[in-house]
Amino acid sequence: MILDARPAMEIPAVQDSYPAEFNHCYGCGCLNEHGYQLKSYWSGEHVVASFVPRPYHMAGPGFVYGGLIASLIDCHGTGAAAAFAYRADEREMGSSPVLRYVTAALKVDYLEPTPLGLRLELRASARVLEARKVIVDIELFADGVMTARGEVVAVRIPRTMLESPYSETVG
Amino acid sequence: MILDARPAMEIPAVQDSYPAEFNHCYGCGCLNEHGYQLKSYWSGEHVVASFVPRPYHMAGPGFVYGGLIASLIDCHGTGAAAAFAYRADEREMGSSPVLRYVTAALKVDYLEPTPLGLRLELRASARVLEARKVIVDIELFADGVMTARGEVVAVRIPRTMLESPYSETVG
Repeated sequence: MILDARPAMEIPAVQDSYPAEFNHCYGCGCLNEHGYQLKSYWSGEHVVASFVPRPYHMAGPGFVYGGLIASLIDCHGTGAAAAFAYRADEREMGSSPVLRYVTAALKVDYLEPTPLGLRLELRASARVLEARKVIVDIELFADGVMTARGEVVAVRIPRTMLESPYSETVG
Repeated sequence: MILDARPAMEIPAVQDSYPAEFNHCYGCGCLNEHGYQLKSYWSGEHVVASFVPRPYHMAGPGFVYGGLIASLIDCHGTGAAAAFAYRADEREMGSSPVLRYVTAALKVDYLEPTPLGLRLELRASARVLEARKVIVDIELFADGVMTARGEVVAVRIPRTMLESPYSETVG
């Protein structure tokens, strides 16, 4: 199965709708030049994304390192949570008040080794959709084979992360 | 609490005992020049590690990105699993047959935002120790505060990861 994770250019990614102050994440922030810049898109009832690991993102020769898989599931999960919440509110992505989520809990089942050298496809479904919490199920495929499955418990971003005493340390 | 994750130089890290073919992991392989090169050490009944995130490993300004936390817990978990298994066998780390583990399942609870700019400390305990499976509980601290807690279900590396049809793609 190949998912529709690279739609026509005119469709904005979920992450492209984030205000700039929410767009520094190493996993999915478009303003983080060192990071993965993962982008998530609507595809029917699902939210999808894709990513091609670099050769050095290996567990051992030939296979993707599990931490990257966890990272992709995590970031796609919080992005998808925002998309599901905006749709439930019948509001446009990015409209105020901003719906931005962080991960309270992450689970990943590594079903089989994920080969390197392929585009990985992620597909997210909303299992629980509440005012302040979204639980997202995510399947990860390599060349059509599901190699990992994850669950992200995403919660509305806490005020403490918006008023950080540390924010000056990262410019 | 400051854990003893940087012992005297003469104590080898768990990962330093891995044969070269198991030492390419982005999270903990000493031969992966792009990666984190996490190192895990015995400390009493625990296995500990520490890591200082780079400024760009952020979720948002001032806080560590969750994917890095998941990655550190994952890699420290498989390293600790090997250490626990060798100790249970009353064998020296790295002795043959090699005990090397991969992650079957990972859980992370993000208890509160993890501030950037600090050395993170990880402490692993063996909860289940069986012939082919080790379940490792991991606590992650930033400046003495536990900000995340994880569980790694580590299993002996499958033969399929040692005989990879993809291994030629990464040199």
